[in-house]
Amino acid sequence: MRRGSNLPAVGTYNQTLVLDLIRRSADGLSRSELAERTGLSAQTLSNVARRLVDTGMVVEGAPVVAGKGKPPTPLRLNPQSRFAVGIHLDPAVDTFVLVDLAGTVVAHEEHAPHPGPEHGMPLPDLASRANELLDRAGVRRDRVLGIGVAAPGPIDAERGSLLEPPMLPAWHHVPLRDSLQQATGLPVTVEKDVVAAMVGELWVDASQGLGEAIFFYYGAGVGVGLAVDATPVRGRTGNAGDVAHLVVEPGGPACRCGNRGCLGVAVAPERLIEDAGLGAGTAPAEWRALLGEMTERALAGDARAGAVFDRTAESLARAMVAMNNLLDADVVVIGGPMWSRISRALEPRLARALATSTESTTTRGIELLGTRLHTDVAAVGAACLVLDGAFTARPAGLMIG
Amino acid sequence: MRRGSNLPAVGTYNQTLVLDLIRRSADGLSRSELAERTGLSAQTLSNVARRLVDTGMVVEGAPVVAGKGKPPTPLRLNPQSRFAVGIHLDPAVDTFVLVDLAGTVVAHEEHAPHPGPEHGMPLPDLASRANELLDRAGVRRDRVLGIGVAAPGPIDAERGSLLEPPMLPAWHHVPLRDSLQQATGLPVTVEKDVVAAMVGELWVDASQGLGEAIFFYYGAGVGVGLAVDATPVRGRTGNAGDVAHLVVEPGGPACRCGNRGCLGVAVAPERLIEDAGLGAGTAPAEWRALLGEMTERALAGDARAGAVFDRTAESLARAMVAMNNLLDADVVVIGGPMWSRISRALEPRLARALATSTESTTTRGIELLGTRLHTDVAAVGAACLVLDGAFTARPAGLMIG
Repeated sequence: MRRGSNLPAVGTYNQTLVLDLIRRSADGLSRSELAERTGLSAQTLSNVARRLVDTGMVVEGAPVVAGKGKPPTPLRLNPQSRFAVGIHLDPAVDTFVLVDLAGTVVAHEEHAPHPGPEHGMPLPDLASRANELLDRAGVRRDRVLGIGVAAPGPIDAERGSLLEPPMLPAWHHVPLRDSLQQATGLPVTVEKDVVAAMVGELWVDASQGLGEAIFFYYGAGVGVGLAVDATPVRGRTGNAGDVAHLVVEPGGPACRCGNRGCLGVAVAPERLIEDAGLGAGTAPAEWRALLGEMTERALAGDARAGAVFDRTAESLARAMVAMNNLLDADVVVIGGPMWSRISRALEPRLARALATSTESTTTRGIELLGTRLHTDVAAVGAACLVLDGAFTARPAGLMIG
Repeated sequence: MRRGSNLPAVGTYNQTLVLDLIRRSADGLSRSELAERTGLSAQTLSNVARRLVDTGMVVEGAPVVAGKGKPPTPLRLNPQSRFAVGIHLDPAVDTFVLVDLAGTVVAHEEHAPHPGPEHGMPLPDLASRANELLDRAGVRRDRVLGIGVAAPGPIDAERGSLLEPPMLPAWHHVPLRDSLQQATGLPVTVEKDVVAAMVGELWVDASQGLGEAIFFYYGAGVGVGLAVDATPVRGRTGNAGDVAHLVVEPGGPACRCGNRGCLGVAVAPERLIEDAGLGAGTAPAEWRALLGEMTERALAGDARAGAVFDRTAESLARAMVAMNNLLDADVVVIGGPMWSRISRALEPRLARALATSTESTTTRGIELLGTRLHTDVAAVGAACLVLDGAFTARPAGLMIG
């Protein structure tokens, strides 16, 4: 339901917008540059700037002397003024990061995931690991805005919990958000991993070129995060982004849905590994290493590994083209825990398959970008959920709460 | 690029929002009801209401006496205070409608489409038909806000023209928007037909239940209009909504893209007609009548027609589920020029196929709705593009222009 707008809502929005612009600029921006970009009056801009400097998030740079008159002082971000914690729950590894206001990772830890419900509640582990991360980083608690948690879907966005993601039995219906909030004293946000990854990409996108974009997540499973008008698409229940059942290889391997050649089974890590001759029935914890080995073989000229990458590139391209035909985004960002192990062999093949697609209806080509979040993109994205909620200027924020 | 906000932008937005709420209410709303829903103060609301009454778009209803004190007077829409023209260019028929502020069709005409470039420029025809529609309806020109044109993609949104839609050769690269604007003296907007249809559905959606929605368009071709946060998804170039190459029937008929079983060929009207035994190689102008005949046969128990509808329902359901898995909309609206001819036979089959889908990942079911725009949905949608541009309250309107 749309709400009205009033002056306090406008004040908050303008302050967030100016912070957003300063944050995304490499060398800071002067008050007059900011007034021009935002359309705000010099007086309004000056008030907003003063309030931002008061919060400590923005600092005055050294005056830039050029010509006569009072030299302009650029306003710059103070990245260490605020922090957020990101946690990625994954079947293979739990990742914890501490991220500053610029989106830079300042602490990073990995832990084996909780083994399952028969070993007791997973929540005390999670809370103590988050608390330890903050203690070791030596960051003042009042500078930490909150904790974001990214997990495979389906999630219950209203309750802030996971429903029944098949590979994470320990977390089914555990009241994640509320309990973690209580145990850490920090606000907690729970999102699907692919949505978090898209939010992370938008946060660090200095050029703001990702207005319409598809984030393709390649991990133990596949999924996508979508952006429309630079806003992440969550869907009605927070579970947007499922592409596992797009048919990309008719006659291909059987899927548990009853069809053949669904994307999820066609490009599954264990299938790539098996078809390249590196082992059948491998476990999630081994996949990253085995995919790395497969990449080395393909780059060294191994025909079998090369053929599997060729087929995988075709399948991924078909799914990306289908989604791009629907959304007319023309930008696909790719990342995720398994992607970094295969990108050197797969990315050139994928770019070729996209460029030669006969199904693409876009009037321009599809631009393929690697993720800018090199650590665990979903963990960094999870931290960015917190930063984004507090400090991304979206027009929706202009409405009376 | 986001812009700042200021008091004039807020004033315009609040006025549009209040008009929006009044328009969508069946019996009008009192000032106090409007203040509660918008969050605006009584004073602001009173000023906004006065300005709306001054424009003639809103009128004071009769006081509702209930209890003591001054009885509240509901504010109601004056539907005849503003109008818009909608034009749908289609391979089979060109449709012209005049729509009032409530989205009601007050005039409706159909013409054979322009035969092609060898018969001269199609623009003079279009302009004189639009002018004649207005003259015959006897509507004052100063009450007509503009003309919306809906056409099959791909469109050039920046130039307001069609690129090269295969079935509309007369219109390739014709400067549609600018020339029609000049010939009629009215502002003109050009959009893809499926986007226009989605805009029309959003305009007449009194309950505002279509926040996230997929409009499935079944005409000479298929396509979809998407809504995210009650805002139509246009894509980067205005060409969002292409689903013709989703594989829904592996091993099915060959598509010009080189694959088999793409949605566009799997559910094409000419295929249904041929497989039901009603004629091969039929022309677009015959399809509506033949599909109507096919529906009668299926309803009378004809097994051949029934089996074709069964297969078609499966194919449509797979495409809808794939899109809904991606967008988590949980609402699909279906319409378009051919749909009304087959809906009685196809809709129950489709609802069943959606309910039993093994590929659906939504945590809730998919709700299937028929279009509320019973005439040509793309033509009404085209008119609604104009109304929507002027009078839908979206937070983006809060930014400094």
